[in-house]
Parts: sequence; structure tokens; C-alpha cells
Amino acid sequence: MVKRYLSLCSLENALHLLKTSFPVPDRRETIPVTASLGRVVAAPVYAPCTVPEVSLAAMDGIAVKSRDTLGAGDQAALTLRDFARVNTGNVIPPGYDAVIMIEDTVEDGDAFRIRKAAAPGQHIRPAGEDIQKGRLVLPRGHLIRAFDIGALATYGITCLEVRTVHVGIIPTGSELVPLGVRPGPGQVVESNTIMAQVYLDAMGAHCTRLPITCDDKDLIREALRSAAAANDLVLISAGSSAGTRDFTAEVISSLGTLLFHGVAVKPGKPMMLGVIGGKPVIGLPGYPLAAQTVIREFAGTLLEEWGLAPAQKFPVPVRLATPVSSDLGFDEFLPVSVGRVGRQYWGMAQSRGPVVQMATVRANGYAHIPAPVEGFEAGHKLDVFLTTDPATIQRTILLSGVMDPALEELGNLARDEGLYIHAGNTGNTGGLLSLRRNSCHAAPMMIPEPSRQSASGFVRSLQGMRDLAWIHIAGIEQGIASREPVSPDALDRLRWVTVRRDLFSPTIFDALLSDSNLDPKRLPGITFEVGSSAAVAAAVEAGQADAGICSRQAAEARGLCFVRVADEQYELALHCPMLDDPLIAHLLALVRGQEFKAALMRRGPYDTTQTGRVCRMPAEPAGPEIGRAGSPSGLI
Amino acid sequence: MVKRYLSLCSLENALHLLKTSFPVPDRRETIPVTASLGRVVAAPVYAPCTVPEVSLAAMDGIAVKSRDTLGAGDQAALTLRDFARVNTGNVIPPGYDAVIMIEDTVEDGDAFRIRKAAAPGQHIRPAGEDIQKGRLVLPRGHLIRAFDIGALATYGITCLEVRTVHVGIIPTGSELVPLGVRPGPGQVVESNTIMAQVYLDAMGAHCTRLPITCDDKDLIREALRSAAAANDLVLISAGSSAGTRDFTAEVISSLGTLLFHGVAVKPGKPMMLGVIGGKPVIGLPGYPLAAQTVIREFAGTLLEEWGLAPAQKFPVPVRLATPVSSDLGFDEFLPVSVGRVGRQYWGMAQSRGPVVQMATVRANGYAHIPAPVEGFEAGHKLDVFLTTDPATIQRTILLSGVMDPALEELGNLARDEGLYIHAGNTGNTGGLLSLRRNSCHAAPMMIPEPSRQSASGFVRSLQGMRDLAWIHIAGIEQGIASREPVSPDALDRLRWVTVRRDLFSPTIFDALLSDSNLDPKRLPGITFEVGSSAAVAAAVEAGQADAGICSRQAAEARGLCFVRVADEQYELALHCPMLDDPLIAHLLALVRGQEFKAALMRRGPYDTTQTGRVCRMPAEPAGPEIGRAGSPSGLI
Repeated sequence: MVKRYLSLCSLENALHLLKTSFPVPDRRETIPVTASLGRVVAAPVYAPCTVPEVSLAAMDGIAVKSRDTLGAGDQAALTLRDFARVNTGNVIPPGYDAVIMIEDTVEDGDAFRIRKAAAPGQHIRPAGEDIQKGRLVLPRGHLIRAFDIGALATYGITCLEVRTVHVGIIPTGSELVPLGVRPGPGQVVESNTIMAQVYLDAMGAHCTRLPITCDDKDLIREALRSAAAANDLVLISAGSSAGTRDFTAEVISSLGTLLFHGVAVKPGKPMMLGVIGGKPVIGLPGYPLAAQTVIREFAGTLLEEWGLAPAQKFPVPVRLATPVSSDLGFDEFLPVSVGRVGRQYWGMAQSRGPVVQMATVRANGYAHIPAPVEGFEAGHKLDVFLTTDPATIQRTILLSGVMDPALEELGNLARDEGLYIHAGNTGNTGGLLSLRRNSCHAAPMMIPEPSRQSASGFVRSLQGMRDLAWIHIAGIEQGIASREPVSPDALDRLRWVTVRRDLFSPTIFDALLSDSNLDPKRLPGITFEVGSSAAVAAAVEAGQADAGICSRQAAEARGLCFVRVADEQYELALHCPMLDDPLIAHLLALVRGQEFKAALMRRGPYDTTQTGRVCRMPAEPAGPEIGRAGSPSGLI
Repeated sequence: MVKRYLSLCSLENALHLLKTSFPVPDRRETIPVTASLGRVVAAPVYAPCTVPEVSLAAMDGIAVKSRDTLGAGDQAALTLRDFARVNTGNVIPPGYDAVIMIEDTVEDGDAFRIRKAAAPGQHIRPAGEDIQKGRLVLPRGHLIRAFDIGALATYGITCLEVRTVHVGIIPTGSELVPLGVRPGPGQVVESNTIMAQVYLDAMGAHCTRLPITCDDKDLIREALRSAAAANDLVLISAGSSAGTRDFTAEVISSLGTLLFHGVAVKPGKPMMLGVIGGKPVIGLPGYPLAAQTVIREFAGTLLEEWGLAPAQKFPVPVRLATPVSSDLGFDEFLPVSVGRVGRQYWGMAQSRGPVVQMATVRANGYAHIPAPVEGFEAGHKLDVFLTTDPATIQRTILLSGVMDPALEELGNLARDEGLYIHAGNTGNTGGLLSLRRNSCHAAPMMIPEPSRQSASGFVRSLQGMRDLAWIHIAGIEQGIASREPVSPDALDRLRWVTVRRDLFSPTIFDALLSDSNLDPKRLPGITFEVGSSAAVAAAVEAGQADAGICSRQAAEARGLCFVRVADEQYELALHCPMLDDPLIAHLLALVRGQEFKAALMRRGPYDTTQTGRVCRMPAEPAGPEIGRAGSPSGLI
């Protein structure tokens, strides 16, 4: 057996080593104050002058000698001839010690009449009211905000010394192409170092991305040697697993010391930490989500430890909408979508594949599952760190069920109205469970034709639900997609691809087999089960299977042949009272609008004749013949 | 009477007018994806290709035909000769349909032995696993985060269309000088438009700051006309009050329509809104804190309404540490410092003067007091919107009492340790009240010499407190500061400046009068009462008074003559159990360190011989003779 990692370093130990093995570089740069937003000041900033430098009028009016005003009153107007007209901010001329607001005076030729005495100092801004010369404006380590810049400018501060760190980032891998070059088969765009640069630069670092180094030990060694000499921190991307061309660990050891290779963190396990010439070298895993974890939890943490601007963390306590499993002994990080259903915040885990970057894109936060935990039940409470403006959470609609491009178009329209749709691809069954837990606003479901419903275990399970309402999104044709036309009597010789059975009831495939008198056991094996109708079509297009069951829309998007087998109804199921929820009411208006229908027509063949129709299930569950009476599509 | 504003527009009406009077400009620009952090996408982004395009190895290992592996088991090793060595990410060669991890194999010459059968599709990333061509990557209106950029790059997206808005900003005022020019008396650095530019650019706008226009109606008209023609939004700074040279409202009316002048918002009242050629024109008040309110609550809100990146809002529910008054009918915004004392978040209002920019700099959040409220009692619960990383709140030490530059030096050192000191200038009495409410960690207090304590009402009030501990910061010499040496028999002919009586017991001044047998009534009036010892010295230096009572440090910093009258002890008072709080324990270690003493010696004359000494008051209050037994300085 080849052992990939001799031993895994715990997250805690890895962070401890990272934070304590290297001196703080204390690198600084001087920048114009106008370009300092989000930067961290390197040295305390003291006021170079007193502001205001002299006493000023705090109001528009007249500067007066307060003793002249004694005796003025409601019944005793007093005429002042010794005054100076001042506007707000004007210097108080010598001898005057109070200002009377212009609205408290009546002009009378070249005099002013007043009806109230002025107290000494009244409406005068004393010298130094804002700050005195030599006083502290910003402590060392202060993170500069927009309004701080206003104050600094007012005090005449034009430039600032702020902290920075020089980071060299080396992408390695013969399969990589730079952004802008279209990758061939098996090639990928080198994007992990772009993420690292964007993330770390936002903290105030200066990242230098070096050219892609192919999997050649000597080239990697040379790149690493010069990057470590020129920077305070080096990230080297990929080459960190145990493949035949993973040289990073070996090269680090040859130039310095490898502190550890492999951390008990998922995703992120192949991470490594070394030291070359006293400088830390972090080996980033090649998988994008693993790279993200290491960028955020290790590289970002080190820069924060070195005094750069922390990435803001806003934790929200949520309940898990779905159970989450986790490997005992591994600290896991998972992308989560958070929304508020009723009075409760729910967190829906997104896909956890280490390469599915869309999981992070779709999520609005992430959760950390500590190493001693094997997972959590649905309903468990934990903190999610938001990656979006917290204010958006109140306007987020959580959906759990079957995904379809129709939802993407709805999501676009919703965003124009300030609504955020977050959806989990949990299938019909997952959607049903979420509705039972009240952990989603609504569940998009794919409901079979009435004639097929009796065969569907899923539809039978709907009987247990009371008070459901259904918002019809669209009718969707389902059928056989293939690269070449298929003959009905050759179905049993094809390699098939279907959606995973845990996602939704593959009624179409069952129906097809039954209609063709095919014995599932005689089929040559389902090569792939994939996550969505579109993935089925992609697999057929790519030749991984000869035929698959998917929507006409998915098949036509790939230019595949398509034979219709049945129609399914794409429905949004929800508890009846949820129809009164302002977010859902807003959403329903969008579903019913012309813009949504137009978007559906553009996007693919959808039957939109019933789009936006709402029906309610009877409060009492129907009898066993739900295909006739109780099913949503039966009613629609 | 001159009426400044004919009528004030409510915040709600003003926002309604702002949001509904202007079409969304829908201005876009195309930028490189690598420069898109924090921007908002203008059009939905669909995947230009399927990722991965073909099936790939998900692990380092061997690609196999799954049917060849049937029969392998723990007791039945199976030797495979038909395989392809693959690294993670390699294309699966035709014919193979599973990958076996290298650690689950034993190499055997040019064959591999396995002990477990492979399922079809095992460790293969199917084509389209991450995304399929044509599927939605980012909805319209999506705010781009660092890790989104990674996904976009992976999908081969090099450029993005994002939203922007062109904003023209006109600074007006003959008293203004641009940043970099030292202002003369009565001049100020033009900083409000810098704030506006920094704040709005961070939302994705392109602001153009025009040159300073002096208070000349024709010049302002011409600047406004061309700015409105060239931009989607115009901000015109100042000239919005009712001074003799406030022309903004008049000029807007001459070029277009003035929608309102004056809002029931504090600070920010003189704000105005107009329309010129269909474009909104916002008149910013001249006072910096009023300008901030209008930039954040109006200009920022309009850009958010237009779809730009919102300024993130992190609300934290806090209890008010001090009572807050508010004008009925005015929506007020006040800078607040938030910290956690025990299990409770407390918010301490900073100074609310509309020109004291340091109040915003010192605060870590702000609160909104709605118009129908006249104020809140201490202890009232309300939301504060943080202006700093929420994580820092847990490491914030709240102090309430007498401010002194010694605290600034302590704040610098604390920041190096990841601690944040937030202090409110509430005086001895305010500090005492805060301690009673447990709304601060500790109260910095200025304690008179034992011989003066019997005269001090404040020290008597300390008797009511039990279980107090005192951390000695430094001894501070207090005395008379003046520009020219003062003769003891001329004291009653001087114009004096003192600190405000509500800030701390002005024992020194009382003692001086008593020692000199002076009758306070015979003094020619205290021209100014100011907020701190340093402000006293500034007022004397500026000639607003002939003499003042302040610290030697403050006097010498201004080059004033100084005659010592008494010593006071600068002490940090706190409840004894607070000494065990980790933040305070950390702080105490800093107070006792050599670095702090060195900083105090650099900063000014301080007596540091006792710095860091802790004493506890007896649990039972002492008798009336607290100067001998019960007082902190008596014990130290």
C-alpha cells in the first residue's frame, strides 16, 4: 500500500505551528490617505494640528459680547450695534465671546434686535473641540473605514503608513492553462491562485502570481527558491497529493523543512506547511474547495496574525435543515445557505464535493464542524459564518427539492425585487422532509402524470401531508435523450444514465421499462447516476452512456435526440399558511408575471399554460386513490 | 426672524422621494473578473462550457473496467493487468469506468493487486459535475466574493459586466482648501467630498470630485449644470444652511426643481434634494458628521436602490450604557462604542457634536433613534450597526470615565495584543454610574490628593461602592497654565477656562480658590468650560482665556507656563471580580509592562513609580474619614 500522508496534523496543531513558527514580517508601505480604505495602520497616527485651530462660529448669526446682551428678554427687546455677522465656521473676531443664531434675531437697519441674553461661549466651537495637536487619532493596528478617511483629511493627514505582506504564489501542474486560454480535455483553467490573490490582497497583502510551473522537480525547486527569497510568505498550489507527479513536499524538504504534510481538515487534507529560509511556505491542495479552505483558514489566519485586515466574520446561529455527516477526527467546513423560515434561521448544506465550486457560489455562508463530531441531526443548532450582507438573510427564500433551470430564471427576477432564492438539490423526497420540518419556505417537486402516480412511492408519501398548497411552475416533457436515434427494440442493449434515485422518483424510467416489457435485471448496467436532468444530458453528450432519461430542455440544450415518454409537472409545494408570507406572496406575483413566462420560453421548451396556478390539497388526506382526488396534478 | 427651513421633510418621506423620483440609470461597465471583488453583476452569468468537460479521475490511482474487478475481496486478491495509471484530474481513457485509489492497491511488477471490487463510476468525476454549459452561475444582482472569482475563472469567464453609477461631487465654500494645503485660521481642509468618494466608490460607483468652487452663485450654477449633464447623480457639498453665502438651494431651483430643503434627521438637517435634467442632486451639509449621515443614509441608500453593492450592516442588540436624549420628531444617528461586559453587550454613545469627527473614529458602530422617541434611559435595548469586524467586539474593553493621553498609549499596546479599548469621556461621576450599572469593564478616574478629598463630593459618593479595586495608571501634576507667568495676587483678574463640572470634580480649581481666599463670585466669569485637560490648554494657548487648570503634560504640550497646584492619581476603578476577566487580566499585564512605562515617559511628565499597583477597597465601606482609610489614593 502507498500511504498518502504519514500522519495528519490536527487543525489546532497546524494553526499553532503556523502562528508560532515565523516572525512577524512588519512590512509597511506609505499610501495616500484617499487609497487607505480597508487597510491597517502600521504606526499610531497623532494629530499634526489642533482642529479647529481657533474658535469658530457654530451657527450662522452674529458674534456678540455676551455682557452686552444682559437684560434682553421676551418683554425687553435689546438692540445690538456692536456685533460681527458670522457664518458657520467663520473665525470669531477678537473681543466677541458668543454667537446668536440668525433666526433668533431681527435685523433692524445696521443693528440687530434680540430677545434673549447670550451665555459666554454660546454657539462657539472652542479651539481643539475635535482634536488637539499630538492626540491620538488612530491606534496602531486600526482598520481604516470610509469615515476615518474624512477625519484624517480634515486633520491634514495626506499619507499613511499601513501594513502589508508580500506573498508569492506559484501555480504548478502540467494540466493547467492560464485564464483566457480555453482548456483542452483534461486541462483546467488555473484559478486557485487567482482566488488566493483576490482573497489575500483584500486583506492588504501584495500578492505576486508567478507563471504556471509544469510538473518538473527542478523548475518547481527554482520557482520556490526565488519566491521564498523575494516574499514574506509563499503559497504553492497543487502537487500536494500523492500522485506520480506530486513533487511539492519533496522540493520543500530539499530547500528547507517540511513542518507537516496533511491536515485533518476537509476539504483541505493535502495541505502542507514548510519553511524555506525562515519564510513560511503553504502548499495549497489542487481541488478548488480544498484550496478555499486553506486560503481562508490558514493563509488568511496567518496574515491576520501578522496584523493585516481580518476577513469579517458574521456568525448566525442556525438550525440544520438537513442532517450532516462528518468524519470523526476531521474538522470539516461546508458551504451553507441560510434563510429565515418563520422565526427560525435554517442552514441548508450545499453539495460538499471538493471540486464543485458552484456549492460555494450558491451558498451564503459556511459552517465549521469540529473534529470530535461525527455529524449532526437535522434541527441541530450551530453557527454559520455568512459570506453575504447579513441584511439579505431576511429576504432569502429557502427552497429544498428538485432543481430545474426554471428556478434559475425565477432567481434572476427575484433579485431585481431584492429577494434571494437559495435552493438545495434534495429531490422530491428531500423536499418533502424539509416541508415536514418547516425548514424551507417551499419545495420544488417534479410530479408525475396522474396515470403514473399509483406506481410512485413518493406520491403515496404525500398523503401524510396536510394543508399543502401547490404553485404550478411549468409542465416539463421528459423522455429519452441520445446522441443517435434509438430504436425501441434496442433499449435493453444501451448503457443508460439516470438521475440518482435519492433525488426524485425516477418514474419515467420505471414507466419506460414497464411499457417496453423490459426486465431491469437484463439491462447492461446503469453506468452513471447523476444529480440532475441536465447532468444526464451532459453525460449522454460526452458519451459516458448511450441514452438517458431527462427533460426535453436538457436534451435540446446539448443537441441530443429526444423521444418524449411522459409529462411531469414542476410544482412548488408549501404549507398553505406560507402563502401569506410576504416573501412567498412576492414570489408568487413574480411566478405569475409575464416576465417569468417570457424567461421560461427563452430558456427552453416549457408548458407555461398553467404557470402560477395555485391549488390547495384538502385538509384531510385523500384516500388511497390519490391519483384521482388528492394529488396536486390531479387537481390542476 | 429668518426661517432657515420652511418645513422639514421626514426621513421616511425623504427616502421615499429619493427612491421613487428618479429612473434607475442602468449604467454598466465590463471589467476583468480578477478585478471584480465586491462588484455587482449587471446581467446573469451563464456557464460558457461544461466543467469538467469530460469524465476525470477523482483520485490518484488506476482507471479500471469495473466488471474486471468482480470477485476481489479480503480473502481473494485479484491481479489487474488492464488498467491506466491516473492522477487526480486526468481524463479517464476510453473503456474504463472506475478508479481505484492508489492506497487500495499493491503494485506488482506491471500489474496491480486489489482486494475490493470497484463499482461503476467509482472515483470518477462525471462530466458536468460542477456545472453544465448554459446553466446559471451568478444571477443578475449578485455581489461578487473572492471565491466566486475562483469559480468564474475555472469556467473560463475572463470579463464581467458589472453595475456602476457615475457620481459628480462638487465641493463649495470659500473657506475650503484642498487636502495637502495647510489651512489658515478659519479655513478647513475639504474632506467631506473625499469621504463621499471613498464611501460610494466602495459600493461600485465612479465618483468624480470636482475642484472646490468658492461661494459664487454663477460659478456654483455652472459647476452644477455640467456635473448634472455628465453624471447619474450629483452631490453638492455645503452651502446648504442659511448663511449669507449659502446659495445651493437657490441655484438648484434656478436649474431645475428643489424637492425639499431640510430633513428631520440629526445630524444632517440642512440636507436638500433637487432634480436637474432628470438627475438627482443631493445637497450635503457642511458639518462632517451631518455629511456622513447624508452620505450613508441617502446617497448610499440611493445607490443600493439602484442595485449597487450595499454597505454591509451588522446589527448587534445592545443595552445603552448611558441615557441618550433625542429630539422628538427627529431621526437621530449617533456614534456608539460597543463591547461585551459579562454576558451583556453595552453601547456607549460617543460625543454627538456635528463637527467632532473623532466621535466616529472612536466608535465601532452607530445607532438610529427613531423620530417618535425623545430618548432612551440607560439600560434600554436597541440595535447598533457595527462599523468594525464583529469578531472584535468580543475583545473590546469598555472604559467610562476621565480621558487622559495615558489611555491612548495603553490603547496602542492593547491593539498589538488583539485587544480593543473603547472609552467614553464621562468624567469621574459618569464612570462611577457606569460601574454601578456594570456597563463598563472599568472606569478611569482622576482621584484628588488625600488632603483634598474631604472637599470632594465625588470621593464621598465612592463610599456607596463596595468591592472596588483600583489599578494605578500614573500620578499627574495639575496646576495653572497660562501664556504669560501669572502673579498669585492677580488670579481674580484673569479670564479662566476649566473642564466642565459634569466631567470630573474640579477639585484643583476649588482648592486654588480656597487657598487664595478668592470668592468665586468675584471672578470675571469662566469664559469657557471644555471637555478635557488638553482642551483647557488649547483654549489658553488660543487666547480664549488667560489661565486654566490642567495637567502639566497638557500645558507643556502647548508651550504654556505651568504652576503646579496639586497631584492627582489617575486610577482605573473596577469591581474586584473583574480582575479575573481575561481581557482585564491581559490589560493589567500591559499596564505593568515596561513598554507602557516607556510610552508614558515619552508622552509627557507622568509619575510612573506606582504604575500597575492594584489595591482593593474594603468590602465594607469605610467611615467618613475615607481620606485616611477608605480612599484608593490613601491606600496606594
